[in-house]
Amino acid sequence: MPDTRELTPIEHSKAPYYWGIDVGGTGIKMGLVDSEGQTVAFEAIQTLADDGGPAAIERVSKHVSLMEESLGLKGQVPYVGLGAPGPMDLRLGLLVEPPQLPKWHGYGIVEDLQKRIERPIIFLNDANAAAYGEFWVGGGRTSASMLLLTLGTGVGGGIVNDNQLINGVNSFGSECGHIVVDSRDDARLCGWGGGRGQLEAYASATGVAIEARKRLEEGVESTLRELPSERVTSKAVYLAALKGDQMAVELVDETAYWLGVGITSLVHTLDPGVVVLGGAMNFGGLHDPIGQRFLRGIVEEFKRRTFEQVFEGTKIEFATLGSDAGFLGLAGYARREHTFPTSI
Amino acid sequence: MPDTRELTPIEHSKAPYYWGIDVGGTGIKMGLVDSEGQTVAFEAIQTLADDGGPAAIERVSKHVSLMEESLGLKGQVPYVGLGAPGPMDLRLGLLVEPPQLPKWHGYGIVEDLQKRIERPIIFLNDANAAAYGEFWVGGGRTSASMLLLTLGTGVGGGIVNDNQLINGVNSFGSECGHIVVDSRDDARLCGWGGGRGQLEAYASATGVAIEARKRLEEGVESTLRELPSERVTSKAVYLAALKGDQMAVELVDETAYWLGVGITSLVHTLDPGVVVLGGAMNFGGLHDPIGQRFLRGIVEEFKRRTFEQVFEGTKIEFATLGSDAGFLGLAGYARREHTFPTSI
Repeated sequence: MPDTRELTPIEHSKAPYYWGIDVGGTGIKMGLVDSEGQTVAFEAIQTLADDGGPAAIERVSKHVSLMEESLGLKGQVPYVGLGAPGPMDLRLGLLVEPPQLPKWHGYGIVEDLQKRIERPIIFLNDANAAAYGEFWVGGGRTSASMLLLTLGTGVGGGIVNDNQLINGVNSFGSECGHIVVDSRDDARLCGWGGGRGQLEAYASATGVAIEARKRLEEGVESTLRELPSERVTSKAVYLAALKGDQMAVELVDETAYWLGVGITSLVHTLDPGVVVLGGAMNFGGLHDPIGQRFLRGIVEEFKRRTFEQVFEGTKIEFATLGSDAGFLGLAGYARREHTFPTSI
Repeated sequence: MPDTRELTPIEHSKAPYYWGIDVGGTGIKMGLVDSEGQTVAFEAIQTLADDGGPAAIERVSKHVSLMEESLGLKGQVPYVGLGAPGPMDLRLGLLVEPPQLPKWHGYGIVEDLQKRIERPIIFLNDANAAAYGEFWVGGGRTSASMLLLTLGTGVGGGIVNDNQLINGVNSFGSECGHIVVDSRDDARLCGWGGGRGQLEAYASATGVAIEARKRLEEGVESTLRELPSERVTSKAVYLAALKGDQMAVELVDETAYWLGVGITSLVHTLDPGVVVLGGAMNFGGLHDPIGQRFLRGIVEEFKRRTFEQVFEGTKIEFATLGSDAGFLGLAGYARREHTFPTSI
């Protein structure tokens, strides 16, 4: 997992520093970030998930020590942000049953890391961490609040309200992929949990691929017919749409439509000012006609359903940080906890 | 507007005290509340809305002085919570165009009150204030977060996430009545703004009455047919349902169904742990069979659409504070601002 990047020289950075440690199914990103959101050190290591949680966290804590020592930062990193995939129990600091980490179910990851590195840890869901990253140094940095929707295998969500994440009482906050957008009796079923009509079945890469295959089976005309079924992915739909394939273009438009419906509900709940779309839908971003068309479709449906003053006060845009958003958000939330401890 | 109540004697209360001042279209509730949520003084005065905002706020500030003086609390009330109906601009501290206060449009209510009583003021939407009241001393007081839905002329919402309200970047936060629950082409239209399929058209007293009249016009059998059209209100539907009228019972069940859909989306966004239903739907609360049936219908639809662990960790219940929730929440949020000043 080679990763070459230009980092901010320590001498121009602002102490104290914060660790953002983003644990995923295949890799762990570790970033040491200053109080203004500049990354001063970065390392990506393999998760080696099959060896179990404690082995990985032991390697993480060794890297923490080594990197702090080699940079001369011992004692200058007072707080750590740790992220992992859900479902998890944020209060108990453990992983419940993340599908990407089958051997880690029930692992008390926070206590284990804390024992090894001996400092306070803030523990977050990885999607919420990414939202805080975009909020702190990415697409949301001009707003007091922000909603991130990540379109990938599922639809992940992360919500920042006035600098505070919505983590939820049951560690289920910001699961925006599971809002109901389609109330019809034949609405699509959600892959996770089987709920009917939930946004994830309409706006995830998985949902788009399933719908494309279904239409091909039903006999709809399309150049995608040339591909074997398993290669009819959301990326393939995007590429076909770029070449003007009608069924593919319709799927792009429908995905945008349902996102517009869902974003209306979310904005009327949260009024975040900025909605950032991240992840791997592969609709090509701002610089290609399908990406533009996709974003325009979302904005139009939102405009049709919202109030003028809310529309005027809400930006919808693509994310800017990519997969770095996670560790940056973790470091940022560690900084926030360190600076303004949560209390009631 | 006589209001007799037993108040907490000052000698048993906890200083400092906070004002909660809840401005409505017909009345203004003023409560002096201690730091544990006990009301030590209360007065309800008429708004006399036609005399304009400054006249009302002048009377409010006189009552503030008089009450503090007579209770010997001068200097012991460091912060004030002020609530009003939206739409408003929370940052500029002004009313935009509240329909209940037609002569107050554009009135800079916060600056005016501040000039007169010379202390910091936190300014909130009245529905959000009520949510914080229920959170602080009512149905949500055992949870770190809470969602309040108020079913009345419209559907008001108020969200507390980890002791912080969702007020929104455009002063439009927690407007949960405007989430989309029905995606069908013939979905009901919202009275305010005309959006299609929004919760308010299904779960407000107004929405229920409109639907009942529509069905009567279409020839549906019902005892409500005996009433003149303008007396077919949501209260009349409730009373007919109590007596077993089939159309009325169906309307109660459908209202519960759509609330169940909406609450699913809201809980999957917020994971608040507690959902509190307040307001004037007049379904009779917990102690009559229709109130019970209504609540059971909501819970069943939510259960059908959510995840087991989320269902287990979420209570849905009726509000306990009634119309006092507003001033209590305002005093409580003033206390919160005084104790933990907001900062980024």
